[in-house]
Amino acid sequence: MIGVAVIGYGYWGPNLARCFAETDGCRLVAIADASPDALARAAKRHPYVRLLNDWREALEDPQVDAVAIATPVRTHFDIANASLLAGRHVLVEKPMTETSAQGRMLLETAERRGLTLMVDHTFVYSPAVAKMKELIAADDLGEVYYYDSTRINLGLFQKDVNVIWDLAVHDLAILQYVLNSRPTAVSANGVSHVHGTPENMAHLSLYLESGAVAHLNVNWLAPRKVRQVFVGGSRKMIVWDDLEVSEKIKVYDRGVNLTDKVEDIYSMMVSYRIGDMWAPHLATTEPLIAEAAHFVDCINTGKRPTTDGRLGLQVVEMLEAATRSMAMRGHPVEFGGMRRAS
Amino acid sequence: MIGVAVIGYGYWGPNLARCFAETDGCRLVAIADASPDALARAAKRHPYVRLLNDWREALEDPQVDAVAIATPVRTHFDIANASLLAGRHVLVEKPMTETSAQGRMLLETAERRGLTLMVDHTFVYSPAVAKMKELIAADDLGEVYYYDSTRINLGLFQKDVNVIWDLAVHDLAILQYVLNSRPTAVSANGVSHVHGTPENMAHLSLYLESGAVAHLNVNWLAPRKVRQVFVGGSRKMIVWDDLEVSEKIKVYDRGVNLTDKVEDIYSMMVSYRIGDMWAPHLATTEPLIAEAAHFVDCINTGKRPTTDGRLGLQVVEMLEAATRSMAMRGHPVEFGGMRRAS
Amino acid sequence: MIGVAVIGYGYWGPNLARCFAETDGCRLVAIADASPDALARAAKRHPYVRLLNDWREALEDPQVDAVAIATPVRTHFDIANASLLAGRHVLVEKPMTETSAQGRMLLETAERRGLTLMVDHTFVYSPAVAKMKELIAADDLGEVYYYDSTRINLGLFQKDVNVIWDLAVHDLAILQYVLNSRPTAVSANGVSHVHGTPENMAHLSLYLESGAVAHLNVNWLAPRKVRQVFVGGSRKMIVWDDLEVSEKIKVYDRGVNLTDKVEDIYSMMVSYRIGDMWAPHLATTEPLIAEAAHFVDCINTGKRPTTDGRLGLQVVEMLEAATRSMAMRGHPVEFGGMRRAS
Amino acid sequence: MIGVAVIGYGYWGPNLARCFAETDGCRLVAIADASPDALARAAKRHPYVRLLNDWREALEDPQVDAVAIATPVRTHFDIANASLLAGRHVLVEKPMTETSAQGRMLLETAERRGLTLMVDHTFVYSPAVAKMKELIAADDLGEVYYYDSTRINLGLFQKDVNVIWDLAVHDLAILQYVLNSRPTAVSANGVSHVHGTPENMAHLSLYLESGAVAHLNVNWLAPRKVRQVFVGGSRKMIVWDDLEVSEKIKVYDRGVNLTDKVEDIYSMMVSYRIGDMWAPHLATTEPLIAEAAHFVDCINTGKRPTTDGRLGLQVVEMLEAATRSMAMRGHPVEFGGMRRAS
Repeated sequence: MIGVAVIGYGYWGPNLARCFAETDGCRLVAIADASPDALARAAKRHPYVRLLNDWREALEDPQVDAVAIATPVRTHFDIANASLLAGRHVLVEKPMTETSAQGRMLLETAERRGLTLMVDHTFVYSPAVAKMKELIAADDLGEVYYYDSTRINLGLFQKDVNVIWDLAVHDLAILQYVLNSRPTAVSANGVSHVHGTPENMAHLSLYLESGAVAHLNVNWLAPRKVRQVFVGGSRKMIVWDDLEVSEKIKVYDRGVNLTDKVEDIYSMMVSYRIGDMWAPHLATTEPLIAEAAHFVDCINTGKRPTTDGRLGLQVVEMLEAATRSMAMRGHPVEFGGMRRAS
Repeated sequence: MIGVAVIGYGYWGPNLARCFAETDGCRLVAIADASPDALARAAKRHPYVRLLNDWREALEDPQVDAVAIATPVRTHFDIANASLLAGRHVLVEKPMTETSAQGRMLLETAERRGLTLMVDHTFVYSPAVAKMKELIAADDLGEVYYYDSTRINLGLFQKDVNVIWDLAVHDLAILQYVLNSRPTAVSANGVSHVHGTPENMAHLSLYLESGAVAHLNVNWLAPRKVRQVFVGGSRKMIVWDDLEVSEKIKVYDRGVNLTDKVEDIYSMMVSYRIGDMWAPHLATTEPLIAEAAHFVDCINTGKRPTTDGRLGLQVVEMLEAATRSMAMRGHPVEFGGMRRAS
Repeated sequence: MIGVAVIGYGYWGPNLARCFAETDGCRLVAIADASPDALARAAKRHPYVRLLNDWREALEDPQVDAVAIATPVRTHFDIANASLLAGRHVLVEKPMTETSAQGRMLLETAERRGLTLMVDHTFVYSPAVAKMKELIAADDLGEVYYYDSTRINLGLFQKDVNVIWDLAVHDLAILQYVLNSRPTAVSANGVSHVHGTPENMAHLSLYLESGAVAHLNVNWLAPRKVRQVFVGGSRKMIVWDDLEVSEKIKVYDRGVNLTDKVEDIYSMMVSYRIGDMWAPHLATTEPLIAEAAHFVDCINTGKRPTTDGRLGLQVVEMLEAATRSMAMRGHPVEFGGMRRAS
Repeated sequence: MIGVAVIGYGYWGPNLARCFAETDGCRLVAIADASPDALARAAKRHPYVRLLNDWREALEDPQVDAVAIATPVRTHFDIANASLLAGRHVLVEKPMTETSAQGRMLLETAERRGLTLMVDHTFVYSPAVAKMKELIAADDLGEVYYYDSTRINLGLFQKDVNVIWDLAVHDLAILQYVLNSRPTAVSANGVSHVHGTPENMAHLSLYLESGAVAHLNVNWLAPRKVRQVFVGGSRKMIVWDDLEVSEKIKVYDRGVNLTDKVEDIYSMMVSYRIGDMWAPHLATTEPLIAEAAHFVDCINTGKRPTTDGRLGLQVVEMLEAATRSMAMRGHPVEFGGMRRAS
């Protein structure tokens, strides 16, 4: 029975607490937050759990085998690092750390100590992403040409990270999981519309080793919530609309055919192919529940989490590179030592 | 009564012919196309009109006062230039020319000869764009922060232009018309998925003098047609969905407020504002009909067309700059002599 | 080569004229309408066609082999009857006649004279309806339980027919074609909201011999246009949304299973079955073009039209019965001699 | 501080328990359910609350001032009646009772004993319904012509009630609240598609004293969930789509105008009016929370609940009449002594 402490009980912490409380093989033993209000809310929902106003106390509690960290990004490294050094397994909110240097240190520490280090990229555990992975792995799409995501809404402006670190972070993890191809370069453009705040709107173009390109449109200042991803392949294409209630994934038997016939002066030797559309039924599993069980399983068996520290680090590296490109108005930044392009 | 010859009777020419045939104050006198099939189709629809297999004949016909050119982009300059030199008013399909140098020559010739030179940026004459212009001009939106467009579909691959010249061209003209602010720099990323063809997918970020940014997502290889523009302002925001039948324009009373109150460690001193949504009723005028009437009116009165050669030239300059940036994977290209940025 | 005269050039006549002008194996020889304005419009579109201000002249023209009647319902019988008596084949706008008695007379005359009598139930020739027919005929849906249609909009109030005769008429023909089951009884409710006009809103429940039930919701006073039909079967279900651009037909692998297990005090021994959804690609044929070709083919070969006079008569009988039930606030009217129920 | 016992902890009971636990001015003191599993679930969520396997014990507990009943319909009367006789205030799940006779008895008992009797018609407490009520009360819609509801999904078949009692019950309460007009007659049609189960699909037409008509389309065997209500008025119309996330209520400035001009032989002296659409921002209050607070307030102040026993009784009377009409295939049933029509 793995004892879990949830550190940080603000926006996301209550979800972690609820899921660990409901998951078999573990129990929620403590909740830590510096805010008395947050602890009062925690007490109401989890009256039998130990409440701490300093997260350090959780690391002294012998009942705590693992911590789940849901604090602001700038505190991730300190808490995760201290937890690993204290011999605790760590699940940390995304993005894993503020810098890739910090990320590399965590990774090293976890590996040296033989501890599980996992990053809470929740979407990776959703039935929709699992279905995309399955379709792509089965080569149903043919060669994957692109991944184009729009992830916008009227969102809470954050003070310690820009919109890329808040929203694009989802797609970067999904991309790694689904396409499994290393990025070669990124070009990003973004802007802040509220004086003194980080960028609240950004567009990223990401070039992958496989030849695929990814584009991410993220925005905290949109009048309407959109969560839509288009994945284009040589044989089929997917539209993933996460706000749809029952048909989140649609697979289109559509594309182009190369032909020999020259149609007329306007068109290429390329013709459309328009076939059926198909919306596979998806499981209704809650992703965070699946993720909590996976964390417990990895701790027990020692196997690598799907969203392990390495994936978390790759995501942080992409966030850093994108932020640098954004400061240069789209000037591309290459990966592999993070050298600037051209 | 202005006599009009339509040159080019492929995909778009028939629409021009129909509209000039129905517009008061002008008459359709000739249709030119090198293809016998095209002329046969023209004969069936317009049996009383002169059919020419060489557009040069139209310029010798004294009944032809103006030409409407709907041929491939690479032929625009030659035909438009010859027409102006022959003393004919010109309406030319967008984009106006293949290069900005050609565009400047046309502009000069038209001005020297006192002829009307107009570019067929049809969307500028649509009720939806007129409504956006009206709302922005009345300062309903407050400061305009951004214009973000998605214009994708499974489209005919073209061999003489990339997808920017085919699809982004619409937004570039609309932007000029609606925001009336000069661009300062552009960063573009794009890719070709079919060997030997121009880029079929691209993303542009455009910085405007006013401080607003524009982003355009264009793609010929999308499984579904999307024509959606978000315009964000400090007071209100617009969503223009051109595929909606009756509510193409929606105005959202939404945004952020700056406050003094520090909410918690996660959030800025920024709060949401979520008010009503409003979809103004739009006229059902056909844009091309309005445009044809405007062309005739400009010829008769000598006034500048809304989409005159200067606007057409600015659009071509932006297309050129975007294409250059795209070749450099997003490296920004500045306007004002077209110097490279940084 | 069948010579066709179009009688009535108001709202629908121009479509018939265009389609017969474009269909192989026939030619449009005359257009008749009492209104000089209508004839002027006809002249502009079809300058080579004979224009008549009295439809009777069409029947004296030896070039006219067939007539297509698009006049108000109350005139259908006189014109169709005179045409048949003059030896002309007849395509008549739906509903075929004002009364079933008139319908029976037309049917008799057409059969006695060996002439083609066809009713313009256009939807029957649409790719969406063809797909539904195909799926049902292949037993993909299992036992068909119901057909539930909503066909509403802000529509032109008509003075010679109520909304059932204008809108429900579509579904009644589609039902006959797709389910091929005789109705046993109808219950209808409806109301007029504008003094002195026929009912503008109505709901029909129709019981079929097969055990299936149909429900039609028709309304001229709805703020939004809806064209949506749900077809429920024991194995699969269809949603046909005719306003969708590219996915008009969606097939759902959903239903209920009977089980032995008693769940709890609330639920039956019935459980859901939720599988995939599938949207077959549909042809983009224009239904009226297909229908015009079918009319010509039936004339040439003597075969029965899909929407022949018998189907047209059944539709009129259902319209009559529904109108009677509506006058009695839903009191059911049985078919088979049109006796009243209970 | 009002002590509340929740009786029945199946599908809906947990929601009542949660809301009373969170509402000021009351506390959740007991939960009763005959099922040990249900009580185990209750214990997990509400560890401090008294658990009873017989609801009668709740009536002996002096801490229980009021009961909230969420048991099957057939048990409502016995439990509610015993509770009132034991001096407890009652909130009972809709529909209030199985028969109107039972309903009248409850009403009498509650009035005689001066106790609050309230029916849990939750939708009446939703921001969307409140907005409709407000718009209609302010005469924004003009004369209300109709209320047309579609409330369908793939739903759990129930064994003690037909689909009217399960789904139409919502609209009947909303209608009473929003239009406040007595029904004069009802015509209903329905059918059972699973042998041995109550009707799972039904259509009701309801005639109101005000002249308005209501139509309800309810179905447990639909492939897709729909919760859509059209309300048509002489001046404006409302579409309420309860599945929309942020724009549940849309108000259309649309209708018809009576004119003197006779357009042509097809049309009446009626013309369209198509103006703007407007979606008012709605509060995000949870209806059941508002309802729980209202129940407590009514107990404390003695004021009549919005959904009091009289409204609950009217709903049951309409359900009974509709069920009778359904057995006669739409034969209308009149209200006022429940005499059969015609």
